[in-house]
Amino acid sequence: MVLPAFILLAPQMGENIGAAARVMANFGLTDLRLVAPRDGWPNPAAETMSAGALPDVVTAQVFERVEDAIRDCGLVLATTARPRGMEKPVLGASEAVARVRATPRRTAILFGAERSGLPNEAVALADAILSFPVSPSFASLNLAQAVALIAHAYSEANASGPPAAFTDAVDAPATREELMGMMEHFEDELDRAGFFFPEAKRAPMVLNLRNAFTRAGWTAQEVRTFRGAIKALAIGRGKWRVKRED
Amino acid sequence: MVLPAFILLAPQMGENIGAAARVMANFGLTDLRLVAPRDGWPNPAAETMSAGALPDVVTAQVFERVEDAIRDCGLVLATTARPRGMEKPVLGASEAVARVRATPRRTAILFGAERSGLPNEAVALADAILSFPVSPSFASLNLAQAVALIAHAYSEANASGPPAAFTDAVDAPATREELMGMMEHFEDELDRAGFFFPEAKRAPMVLNLRNAFTRAGWTAQEVRTFRGAIKALAIGRGKWRVKRED
Repeated sequence: MVLPAFILLAPQMGENIGAAARVMANFGLTDLRLVAPRDGWPNPAAETMSAGALPDVVTAQVFERVEDAIRDCGLVLATTARPRGMEKPVLGASEAVARVRATPRRTAILFGAERSGLPNEAVALADAILSFPVSPSFASLNLAQAVALIAHAYSEANASGPPAAFTDAVDAPATREELMGMMEHFEDELDRAGFFFPEAKRAPMVLNLRNAFTRAGWTAQEVRTFRGAIKALAIGRGKWRVKRED
Repeated sequence: MVLPAFILLAPQMGENIGAAARVMANFGLTDLRLVAPRDGWPNPAAETMSAGALPDVVTAQVFERVEDAIRDCGLVLATTARPRGMEKPVLGASEAVARVRATPRRTAILFGAERSGLPNEAVALADAILSFPVSPSFASLNLAQAVALIAHAYSEANASGPPAAFTDAVDAPATREELMGMMEHFEDELDRAGFFFPEAKRAPMVLNLRNAFTRAGWTAQEVRTFRGAIKALAIGRGKWRVKRED
């Protein structure tokens, strides 16, 4: 699998080029190609907007014609919102990414200019059309947003799931024994407080509470905090603090 | 299925608010909520950048506190790139959208400010974390790009077919207002019992409890049962039954 190239045809605003480069870097993509950018290249507005992605994290190559920009690619996709009356398969982002990942050569993904979109000549060079389920009455997607959607879909497909992070910083989960101890402690105190009344309501009430508690996936620390809270309430208003100050 | 609300916490740049509104409109979403926008509201830069989405296609409501902005929501997702050391499920965009579509009540999706992201207090109010498979060395996603990714995932899922069937055997989930009422009730009683001592421990203890509670996905019935339990404990041993027999 080769990282796809994102090709912007005749982009107008440097800000959009920069925002596109930034979100490519967000998702680990590095191959940006510009065909006849309106304001030339390099473009200071693009660098500012790229938040550090340009010129080093993402490499921008400039071409005169789209034909030159796609020469080394084995699959070409054209992003477009408007129907073109062309007999091409139309893919959503996830389907397109599946094609990209299944292609041993580099894929080129073409994006048109802000106002006009892709010219028919460029779409004609593509194997398939890549389209988004936009609202027909508000169909004009910002250029960098379109880049973002594909970059994300690509990265999401590569990641086997959500990022595995977040696990190392996290507290140990409570054992089932700790969790049951907590629930029984709570129920005991509720018993003493006369909460389960009448007796016939006891079972459904306990079930209710246990359902809610077991869904939560408590950490050991949270169990300790909650048991402290039960104890404080059970001892009664104002007495907890006195006891801890002994 | 109810259209989700996109909630921007303390957004700084009007341009980002406008770009977020534009891409929401692209994908048929209309419920934008702003919590304490830095430059006030309305904001001319936001309207310009929205390309006609603001103020009529997308409606922006302004709130002072995040608690107020999520009151009518049954599921709350917090978008974040950084690990938080909080015990919450972490969902990718597609998984998150599946949850949104399976929830009969409105979903709130929280987005943090450009520089700082979401504060821990806001993440603690969420049922789950929504994260993107970003490159660890270039993780900072533009605010409007994050909005775009979720809006697109939502529309793509809708375009591909009806949502997973609702499980009608299940009780209605509690609204966020009911759940927050329950947590505040619990914290009030713990306050009266002198539990939050010393004062410096108050914030981490509240965070601990709220994290555990929001993970549980409470039904309205479970909330009522738990509030009854708190009341019983607060009144004190033996007195509850007497009171109910009055």
